[in-house]
Amino acid sequence: MDNHWIAIDWGTSNFRAFLMNHNQCIDSVSAHCGLLSVPNRQFDAALLPLIAPWLAQHPNLPLLMAGMVGSQQGWQEVPYVELPAGGQRFAQQTAQVVTSWGSPCRIVAGACGVNDFGLPDVMRGEEIQLIGLAAQYPQERHRVILPGTHSKHATLDHDRILHFNTFMTGEIYAVMLNHSLLGKDLPEPREDNSAFVLGVQNAQTAPYLSNALFSARTLKLGGVINAAQVASYLSGLLIGSELAALSETQAWIVGSPALSERYMRAASLLGITLISVDGDSCFIHGMNKIYQSLDGAFA
Amino acid sequence: MDNHWIAIDWGTSNFRAFLMNHNQCIDSVSAHCGLLSVPNRQFDAALLPLIAPWLAQHPNLPLLMAGMVGSQQGWQEVPYVELPAGGQRFAQQTAQVVTSWGSPCRIVAGACGVNDFGLPDVMRGEEIQLIGLAAQYPQERHRVILPGTHSKHATLDHDRILHFNTFMTGEIYAVMLNHSLLGKDLPEPREDNSAFVLGVQNAQTAPYLSNALFSARTLKLGGVINAAQVASYLSGLLIGSELAALSETQAWIVGSPALSERYMRAASLLGITLISVDGDSCFIHGMNKIYQSLDGAFA
Repeated sequence: MDNHWIAIDWGTSNFRAFLMNHNQCIDSVSAHCGLLSVPNRQFDAALLPLIAPWLAQHPNLPLLMAGMVGSQQGWQEVPYVELPAGGQRFAQQTAQVVTSWGSPCRIVAGACGVNDFGLPDVMRGEEIQLIGLAAQYPQERHRVILPGTHSKHATLDHDRILHFNTFMTGEIYAVMLNHSLLGKDLPEPREDNSAFVLGVQNAQTAPYLSNALFSARTLKLGGVINAAQVASYLSGLLIGSELAALSETQAWIVGSPALSERYMRAASLLGITLISVDGDSCFIHGMNKIYQSLDGAFA
Repeated sequence: MDNHWIAIDWGTSNFRAFLMNHNQCIDSVSAHCGLLSVPNRQFDAALLPLIAPWLAQHPNLPLLMAGMVGSQQGWQEVPYVELPAGGQRFAQQTAQVVTSWGSPCRIVAGACGVNDFGLPDVMRGEEIQLIGLAAQYPQERHRVILPGTHSKHATLDHDRILHFNTFMTGEIYAVMLNHSLLGKDLPEPREDNSAFVLGVQNAQTAPYLSNALFSARTLKLGGVINAAQVASYLSGLLIGSELAALSETQAWIVGSPALSERYMRAASLLGITLISVDGDSCFIHGMNKIYQSLDGAFA
């Protein structure tokens, strides 16, 4: 019996696939082939060349996909799983899609809940990393930051996701830098730790973000930071503002090493300890947990 | 002796000029001819046709200008007046520019200070409206909202501006609607009061703006608001968030009637009374105060 299968993280901007042998990842591929770049919603045709080398060796490999591929804009919309929920629940709510080459294929749902501020909140993709974190590091309670375009602060109870809050940190950074007065006439930004630190600190004394953001302009006008430092300052301001919402002094952080490092640098200034776990590793563990729970649904 | 002169508010996006006879406005002109639309910084050439009809009747009319025309990107940079300061101080710090047709011309400086959150803050143009408000409605203390792209909350002591806080309300609204996921695939927005009210209210329970903004997406996904209501919801959220920073229950509001009405609607939900004064009227009174204080500097 062939124990190979493929775990796929297909988001708006990026595509990653992991060739699995039972619960081990034995190969991976990534491409800037996000959902938005797929012409005419031909997801099947876009997917095939990305995994063709693996299919050549193992025909009809089962596929398990997660991320925005299960959204309205994706291959097929899969209704959100309502929190609290754990891996078993997500395994029950996968949706089947048909591939032209005969691979059985299922998409895992995202999660929805009510956040700490009484507002509805949603995620697609991060729920897999949370399930994978709980599988790798079992404990009674996790507080977890998943940094990114739409950062998530989640709480786990054993292996169940209880609730989470979204912060639009990465997207606000990008749109303010590229489309607002703050980013006007800037040179190529360079990573600058002193400006980043200043941003993190100022976010603590200036609690209203729409006010604090303007300091990226006034500090440049006043010569406190220069034009090449504005991006780092803005990054510090937004990450510092996000971390100000965290009531714990210790949390896990699950993401890319570069972005996690940035958050850890900010957190250390605020007396917060972040334990970093690789995002891909959590994704693989989470997908494996769900795949094993599917219990022959692919048979 | 000819008592005519011209007061000009020249900003990044708009141009307005008021023909004055002593302290009375007798005519006005406005044009979408902001500084950014002036080719090759030919401000002199851009200005002449806008006021030519007045110059034909009153040659060499003195000009007093305010707004971004005095910034680095404007006709001539005029260093900020440091707060606290009143009309007299602004009259002392005007800068002279030369016009090709012989009109004497001066630009009023903007104001800089340290805001309530310890950060440097700047304004160009709003200081005139504040001076004009104090001239029209003298009292010991004013708390004033000047809504706009970069809203200002200022405090006046008699006729002196003490300090102020900027909120990037209008610009965040525009960039998030036009460039972020929140504004993606929306129909033409329509003014919707129920969505606006919901936004104002949600801003009170969700104090972290980068978190609260995401609800413009999740409430649409959940069918609580529809796509055509997203813009009104976002407006309510941002204005509600700005007003949450106001510690007073009564304040003046100086701006365009349409924008002021929107703020008053939000404020009434929060138990805040706003007294509305027309922005143009404040601008004219403020410029007149400074012009009279110039005391023959134009002679």
